[in-house]
Amino acid sequence: MWLFVLTKKINFYFRINSETKIMAVLKFDDVAYEKVKEGLQRKIIHTDNLMSVLIDFSNGPWEVPEPPHSHPHEQTSYVAEGEIIFYCEGEPEQHLKAGDMFAVPSNKKHTIKLLTQKVRLIDSFTPIREDFLKEEKAISSRQ
Amino acid sequence: MWLFVLTKKINFYFRINSETKIMAVLKFDDVAYEKVKEGLQRKIIHTDNLMSVLIDFSNGPWEVPEPPHSHPHEQTSYVAEGEIIFYCEGEPEQHLKAGDMFAVPSNKKHTIKLLTQKVRLIDSFTPIREDFLKEEKAISSRQ
Repeated sequence: MWLFVLTKKINFYFRINSETKIMAVLKFDDVAYEKVKEGLQRKIIHTDNLMSVLIDFSNGPWEVPEPPHSHPHEQTSYVAEGEIIFYCEGEPEQHLKAGDMFAVPSNKKHTIKLLTQKVRLIDSFTPIREDFLKEEKAISSRQ
Repeated sequence: MWLFVLTKKINFYFRINSETKIMAVLKFDDVAYEKVKEGLQRKIIHTDNLMSVLIDFSNGPWEVPEPPHSHPHEQTSYVAEGEIIFYCEGEPEQHLKAGDMFAVPSNKKHTIKLLTQKVRLIDSFTPIREDFLKEEKAISSRQ
């Protein structure tokens, strides 16, 4: 219970910091994951126009990639752990591993498939993903 | 020599891809570092308004941090390897380690000091750092 309150408190400070434009830090051990769905958890940091999202995958997709998706936001990604196949509309598929990066222009369809049990991506977006912040609020209110 | 030509060729394709807005990938093993100075090397990927920079530090600063600097670009950073002290104007210093992140608003002074022999940061910026692309061109023409 105490730990739960503390984690909430740290999350709160983190949000306040980013909203008041004070430098924000996200210490991995102090900030709880947002659970997006089974085996897909993330932690988010952002400024006004730039968002970076640490995403940990532990439940695939291994057989078939997620359906391709697109968004007006420009994206760059760093593979921090594991290996993936990266698919992008009209391009040959790419086998990427820890240390590799990819970039997705605005509105270009893309998706991934995992080649390892666990994968960590660091996705950055401009402008920020307001949809992620709304989801974060919804997830947080359900807890 | 063959390897040198191949690396140049891959770098060239990478640049062409990013300029023509085709999805770009940066495979760590295929793209040469830009050597900014002794013990400071980087690899860059970007879209129109978003740039991510893999920076490997292997020569400090360990004793005294670099002089603080600022830029109009908003920045987020992921500590991919090692430990640092992160300093930001008017804020308490922060001890960060692999897995942690920080965000720097536009024009806020900041700097780092290393706590480990090697450090890897993934810095993202919006807008893109045109100064880095000019440096890349200058470094490349000296080689």
